[in-house]
Amino acid sequence: MRKEFRDLAEPDEAHRIIEGLPLAPDSEPVPLAEARGRVLAARIDAQLDVPGFDRASVDGYALKAKDTFGADEAEPARLTKVGEVHAGAEPDVVVGEGECAEISTGAVVPEGADAVVMVERTDEDGDEILVRTSLAPGDRIMFAGADVAAGERALGPGTRITSREIGLLSALGIDEVPVRGRPTVGIISTGDELVRPGESLNADAGEIYDVNSYTIAAGVEEAGGEQTLYPHAGDDYEAMESLLREAAEECDLVLSSGSTSASAVDVIYRVVEETGELLLHGVAVKPGKPMLVGTIKESAYVGLPGYPVSALTIFRTFVAPVIRAAAGLPEPATATIDGQMAVEERYAEGRLRYMPVGLVESGEDLLVYPVDKGSGATTSLVEADGVVAVDPDTEYLAEGETVEVQLFSPDVRPPALFGVGEDDPALARILDAVSNPRYLGLGSREGLRRLRNGIPDVAVTTQTLELDAEELGSWTREWGLVVPAGNPRNVEGLGDLVDRELSFVNRTSASGLRTSLGNAVAELATERGEKRHALVEAIEGFDRGVRAHESPARRVLAGKADVGLGLRATAASLEMGFVPVGEETVQVLANPERIEKSGVERLREAIESTDVFDSLPGYRR
Amino acid sequence: MRKEFRDLAEPDEAHRIIEGLPLAPDSEPVPLAEARGRVLAARIDAQLDVPGFDRASVDGYALKAKDTFGADEAEPARLTKVGEVHAGAEPDVVVGEGECAEISTGAVVPEGADAVVMVERTDEDGDEILVRTSLAPGDRIMFAGADVAAGERALGPGTRITSREIGLLSALGIDEVPVRGRPTVGIISTGDELVRPGESLNADAGEIYDVNSYTIAAGVEEAGGEQTLYPHAGDDYEAMESLLREAAEECDLVLSSGSTSASAVDVIYRVVEETGELLLHGVAVKPGKPMLVGTIKESAYVGLPGYPVSALTIFRTFVAPVIRAAAGLPEPATATIDGQMAVEERYAEGRLRYMPVGLVESGEDLLVYPVDKGSGATTSLVEADGVVAVDPDTEYLAEGETVEVQLFSPDVRPPALFGVGEDDPALARILDAVSNPRYLGLGSREGLRRLRNGIPDVAVTTQTLELDAEELGSWTREWGLVVPAGNPRNVEGLGDLVDRELSFVNRTSASGLRTSLGNAVAELATERGEKRHALVEAIEGFDRGVRAHESPARRVLAGKADVGLGLRATAASLEMGFVPVGEETVQVLANPERIEKSGVERLREAIESTDVFDSLPGYRR
Repeated sequence: MRKEFRDLAEPDEAHRIIEGLPLAPDSEPVPLAEARGRVLAARIDAQLDVPGFDRASVDGYALKAKDTFGADEAEPARLTKVGEVHAGAEPDVVVGEGECAEISTGAVVPEGADAVVMVERTDEDGDEILVRTSLAPGDRIMFAGADVAAGERALGPGTRITSREIGLLSALGIDEVPVRGRPTVGIISTGDELVRPGESLNADAGEIYDVNSYTIAAGVEEAGGEQTLYPHAGDDYEAMESLLREAAEECDLVLSSGSTSASAVDVIYRVVEETGELLLHGVAVKPGKPMLVGTIKESAYVGLPGYPVSALTIFRTFVAPVIRAAAGLPEPATATIDGQMAVEERYAEGRLRYMPVGLVESGEDLLVYPVDKGSGATTSLVEADGVVAVDPDTEYLAEGETVEVQLFSPDVRPPALFGVGEDDPALARILDAVSNPRYLGLGSREGLRRLRNGIPDVAVTTQTLELDAEELGSWTREWGLVVPAGNPRNVEGLGDLVDRELSFVNRTSASGLRTSLGNAVAELATERGEKRHALVEAIEGFDRGVRAHESPARRVLAGKADVGLGLRATAASLEMGFVPVGEETVQVLANPERIEKSGVERLREAIESTDVFDSLPGYRR
Repeated sequence: MRKEFRDLAEPDEAHRIIEGLPLAPDSEPVPLAEARGRVLAARIDAQLDVPGFDRASVDGYALKAKDTFGADEAEPARLTKVGEVHAGAEPDVVVGEGECAEISTGAVVPEGADAVVMVERTDEDGDEILVRTSLAPGDRIMFAGADVAAGERALGPGTRITSREIGLLSALGIDEVPVRGRPTVGIISTGDELVRPGESLNADAGEIYDVNSYTIAAGVEEAGGEQTLYPHAGDDYEAMESLLREAAEECDLVLSSGSTSASAVDVIYRVVEETGELLLHGVAVKPGKPMLVGTIKESAYVGLPGYPVSALTIFRTFVAPVIRAAAGLPEPATATIDGQMAVEERYAEGRLRYMPVGLVESGEDLLVYPVDKGSGATTSLVEADGVVAVDPDTEYLAEGETVEVQLFSPDVRPPALFGVGEDDPALARILDAVSNPRYLGLGSREGLRRLRNGIPDVAVTTQTLELDAEELGSWTREWGLVVPAGNPRNVEGLGDLVDRELSFVNRTSASGLRTSLGNAVAELATERGEKRHALVEAIEGFDRGVRAHESPARRVLAGKADVGLGLRATAASLEMGFVPVGEETVQVLANPERIEKSGVERLREAIESTDVFDSLPGYRR
């Protein structure tokens, strides 16, 4: 069904081809007030002297230096004040021998004067001024052009304009600056299943929100380009073709991200062949094999992979550098960071791999761990901080080995706190008090497993195990059966699930809540003198579970089941009925080597000081 | 004349007072497409499952896993194809026992099916599909909510929004995001002498362009604030007062930078006292003593010093952090950098000093040197890269001591090439080929002195001295006397300057060109059998010089002198007359330890490959 790619290009060749794409925006003039962050397109030579006149550097008196020769505290020179000169005014006085003029900082030194004395070194005596120091010609005067002289090179082409360059341009009186143009990038999304955020979604028809268009648009802006999102083409091939042509007409570069349909790829292929040139079809990297590079009319075209992390990785690695180069911007200083592998990673695929990784700070070290979620997951975007390029001939990365992480964005920072464990609504609120936390709600068991492996800072668990860990805090939550509002089927307890024809939605086995349910079923079996597995088999839906704390309740709410496993707090927030079964303790455990990490300390304080247990039904400390 | 400040506050107290200013912008909703770089104001919990349905992960066939138990290459399972399901379409088929449905990646797994087999593991045989592998329930299916489950915490308040967060928000269908507001900052400039860039300037009346308003406005934007420049108030006190009130009404923070006039300070003082509260008047730092902090109505007010570097330093140190905090942004990762002092710096003023410094890379080291230009100079802005905070009780910083440099902007980088020496128009063009150079045209002598001290990478000189340096290249330039177009006074050579009543403009003594002139006068004296100093004294204007290569010519052009010292190239570019006197060689010398530095290599190549010597009159290699 899908087109197969042969003769994959080597990554270096792909870089070379993409760097050769026609992406040269014209330079443009911008007002000084909008020049910040832009890049100068031409040399700026000063067209005037700064200052434009001989300028007093202090408040005092302008005079002839030779009139003060030999003067000191004891024997001041005595001069006649003949006038005043203020900043921003043309002097109306000439200083002759034995004379002086009062002068303000920044004012024009009047004709005849060749030095200025600070007011602090003088005294007034009627119309006469006593000067209690000797001056040399030029003292306390900034001569015309001393700061910048007309004809001097002030700033060169390629200069990034920051506040200080704005300052120099202002001093030169320049209010319009020639800057490098920003390359314009058109982004096209294809696929009948894609819906724009904000529009309504029909999940039953397999619709999903369009992730890549917005992610890549933000990436284009981060790289210094100007992005345009084109209206959604669906899988209507005529519409797609005319969109591609329109975008190529209007933009320097057109990007699309992998349509799932082979026919859509065919349309793009044909438009490229008809109106431009196909330069590359497939690259030997993981992810990113189906990358398409070419020209459409006078514009460049790159087709990115479809999975969000893959699309962002390929964009960041192959496309962002050429956008930056076209805009005249350097690679951001914070775009890469070195760290140590937290675990060994084996690899044997024989092609360059961009491995998504997360970062966690441990003392002075920055640990790097692979994020192993499928690349189709959007959450990989926020669970990973960047990628590590693993060479085709690297067989494994050793634990502790130093690797360079290419961050997804220059503004990405390692999280202040990294936690894994039980999905809990109280915890979600407590985390609001920690800035920049990362928390993966993978369940109690996974939290404990990873804490043991030394990667996260904390695990959140309903299961107490022998473990070298420090408890930061704990609380208790009430759990049970979530039913529709008003409990229409009159469910009274676990026994009803076993005895009656009720469809049930469980949690996945990673969840601590499911363990609590299993224990309660075992107790019921003991009470009844039956085998546990017999009761489990009698519950319709016990074996299959859903992932998060609200998921079972939402299935019930959608009419897809009668009863869901859940918390009293969840039932209350969704305005549903609740049949209590038990209570369980949620513990927050920290890696003992990280208890002084600021994010961990902050979490401990947040647990101690929160009032969330008073406001969430079924919770207590 | 000027108000004196007593009881200077300690810097820590100033920080504390400024941090306590009322600067709390409301949060606001922004469209997803404009959310990049902003900071989330609230927690975002997922309101839907991602994916919203059980989704096929591959192209292939949806089936019941138990129908494939035991199947392999040799003995495939044989299933009847009962329909097709495409991405973005609702399934119109139910899969029964012994049946399968063709399915595309991303499509909804139809009712009855619990696994998907890849097309590569199947064969078609008429209406039947041969499945050559065994599957387990759930294979090649991404279950509803597996990526993000409804009710899960997706992103927390305080999260900086980069491309990856944009991706997650898109996946959740969110098209409007609650973000922290940007604090609004009003900037007021005072002083009759200030003129806005782009307007015409009367230098004779002591007017200068307004530097601080634009510099600080750019600094406000870098810190995440929104700036408004208020129209220029001059020294009209009523206008200034109403501007202060208007800005306070409209902005969270009002900034002004030091008026040179004491009365202007009095107006600000009075408005603060009448409408708000004066919190601080003067801080024990250098620069920045006259800092004023208070409130005007409900808004915060900070008065900054008047010199550009001082204003930017105080803004960056005291004000930018509170703007960032109000916007929810962290200190940028690149805002500080460590380096080693290139020279010893003595210090004994007993108060905290922010010392402006430049940076230069030398091998693995980053050298830091004080920029000693007066703080009134705008060029200090671009000759310095940031400041080093020197404690009141630090007596000196040793050569080689490690210091932390607070960069003026996070985007500031050490220059790729640092040169000092002769001001030369050919060099100005050659430098265009080097990205991010820094060149100080301080004259040949100063270039050689500094090269000997080990700070710059290169010196450019017309004077050959014994020096351990490598020549990167050299060229020859013709110099002489620049006269008005058509040479109205009929100047024929140096002798005319001595013999006739001609007013002359020389260069400063740092200039190599002045040395060449001096040598030529000495030769003329020898020819005539006279003393050199007698000839010098006969030239009106020989002793005072101006700074840059065009400066004398521009004085002549402005009618302030008859003859100026200059180059043939300068005369040509200003369309003036030229009387040749001699030729001199310009040498570019490099620090031998830095010849492999990329900026130095680039300069060598640029000198070798330039065609500027063909286009500039009077130049040759």
